[in-house]
Amino acid sequence: MENFEQRLNEHADRVTVALDALLPRAEGPEAHLNSAMRYAALGPGKRLRPFLTIEAGHLVHADERGVLRAACALECIHAYSLIHDDLPCMDDDDMRRGRPTVHKAYDEATAVLAGDGLQSIAYEILAHPDTHQRGSVRARLVERLSRASGPYGMVGGQMIDIRAETEQFDISVVTRMHRMKTGALISYAVEAATILKDVDDPVRRALEGFAHDLGLAYQITDDLLDATGDEDEAGKAVGKDAGQGKATFVTILGIEGARDRSRHLAAQAKEHLDPFGARADVLREAVDFILARRS
Amino acid sequence: MENFEQRLNEHADRVTVALDALLPRAEGPEAHLNSAMRYAALGPGKRLRPFLTIEAGHLVHADERGVLRAACALECIHAYSLIHDDLPCMDDDDMRRGRPTVHKAYDEATAVLAGDGLQSIAYEILAHPDTHQRGSVRARLVERLSRASGPYGMVGGQMIDIRAETEQFDISVVTRMHRMKTGALISYAVEAATILKDVDDPVRRALEGFAHDLGLAYQITDDLLDATGDEDEAGKAVGKDAGQGKATFVTILGIEGARDRSRHLAAQAKEHLDPFGARADVLREAVDFILARRS
Repeated sequence: MENFEQRLNEHADRVTVALDALLPRAEGPEAHLNSAMRYAALGPGKRLRPFLTIEAGHLVHADERGVLRAACALECIHAYSLIHDDLPCMDDDDMRRGRPTVHKAYDEATAVLAGDGLQSIAYEILAHPDTHQRGSVRARLVERLSRASGPYGMVGGQMIDIRAETEQFDISVVTRMHRMKTGALISYAVEAATILKDVDDPVRRALEGFAHDLGLAYQITDDLLDATGDEDEAGKAVGKDAGQGKATFVTILGIEGARDRSRHLAAQAKEHLDPFGARADVLREAVDFILARRS
Repeated sequence: MENFEQRLNEHADRVTVALDALLPRAEGPEAHLNSAMRYAALGPGKRLRPFLTIEAGHLVHADERGVLRAACALECIHAYSLIHDDLPCMDDDDMRRGRPTVHKAYDEATAVLAGDGLQSIAYEILAHPDTHQRGSVRARLVERLSRASGPYGMVGGQMIDIRAETEQFDISVVTRMHRMKTGALISYAVEAATILKDVDDPVRRALEGFAHDLGLAYQITDDLLDATGDEDEAGKAVGKDAGQGKATFVTILGIEGARDRSRHLAAQAKEHLDPFGARADVLREAVDFILARRS
């Protein structure tokens, strides 16, 4: 696990350096906006989604530069979603990863615009010829990312999440909500590599299955952290779901039931990697890391 | 002018019908989100940017289906920007086009998400193979739209606009702000047609020049409307700029100076169309319409 964390950190650093070069400089009368975008996208973070893209890229022998750019685009989408999620009208969080959230460090208007700007930058990165020589590959990356992060994916899931505070949803809706809210983007992290390389169907399906189960396991762990985690370790407020009477895997399955479910999904995620043998060991370790995480 | 307005309305209807089919249905637990997106994108509006795309598309003989899809994507970006612009932490507007703004008709969280969702839908529309058979064309449409609407364009311009309430900017910054905030997207409206058709450089440059001057004339008219317009006719609050002591073309040039400037730009915009002869008459009328508009 120690080697794994070192590798995770190395990839995170590569993504941060690449993003630093891709994001607009904080200059001119709009410097405030660019500064807020950089604060959100370049600040501390595990860069888990980019890590999955890079490792899946290694596995299928995709071009490294394209993989790194896709990883950066994905991190921009993730960072934008966190900025907007933290807004007073949304989750109203003051702290994120141990630092003030963007609307606290800057202001609300700048936070809205910084999220909007990071979303557009993600597509600019993907669509640029440097990402892949074939335009059809770039267009496919854009199409799938917008699908995974838009109303059919992340944004739709966030809407259901908000409604879960006031409506009684059953386990099928909660599962669908998580699949959209978090799972779709984690799936995209792996899918991006298979688009860049244009792999065979069995390889694509194996990685799809892996990402699907991992994404759900990830979200169950998130729910468990909110229910049982430590505020200092998590770097953000915990215990919010129960306080809001929100339907989550933990409120529906109980703590032990949720732990069982996540262990089951983790085992299943690893089984999808069987065809790759030892070459997929890093992705197997990623599963364990995600389940064991404390923040 | 009567024929022009009829044509404008006909194009607007085509765009609304196409958008209606492209936007997600208001179904399932996320129905609230999709309903808000539809409220914003399908509601009343002149659809001026899509009109420019469709007419520029006719002029260069671009494929009609691709042009209509690009026009829809552009309208999604425009609609998203209005939703976020109207938020309490931004312009704090309750009315837009004579109806409650999205955060009034729904709520703030839904408005943030509806804007985010419309932005992603725009790229999904452009990147889809139905827009153009060549992936490089689709990727180019995405790249240019993200550039025009992101931190280097619309979103950057909005940031400067907010700073203009508290900082003293000179005419060069105000011009740059408008070029980014409104001009970039109006330029894209015309550019999209030249990307879809892959026109010669002289044609591209002529249309670029036209769109550039038109965009600035449009924004000056906007400033004039805010300074001299009627609230009922405009369908939104007026007189806000002066109330906030904001630097605009009107506060810097005065009302007569701003009128002169917009007339000059309008004439220049039309000169760019000379090479197209009578075939560009509709675009010439569009210039007059934009200058004469009351909302």
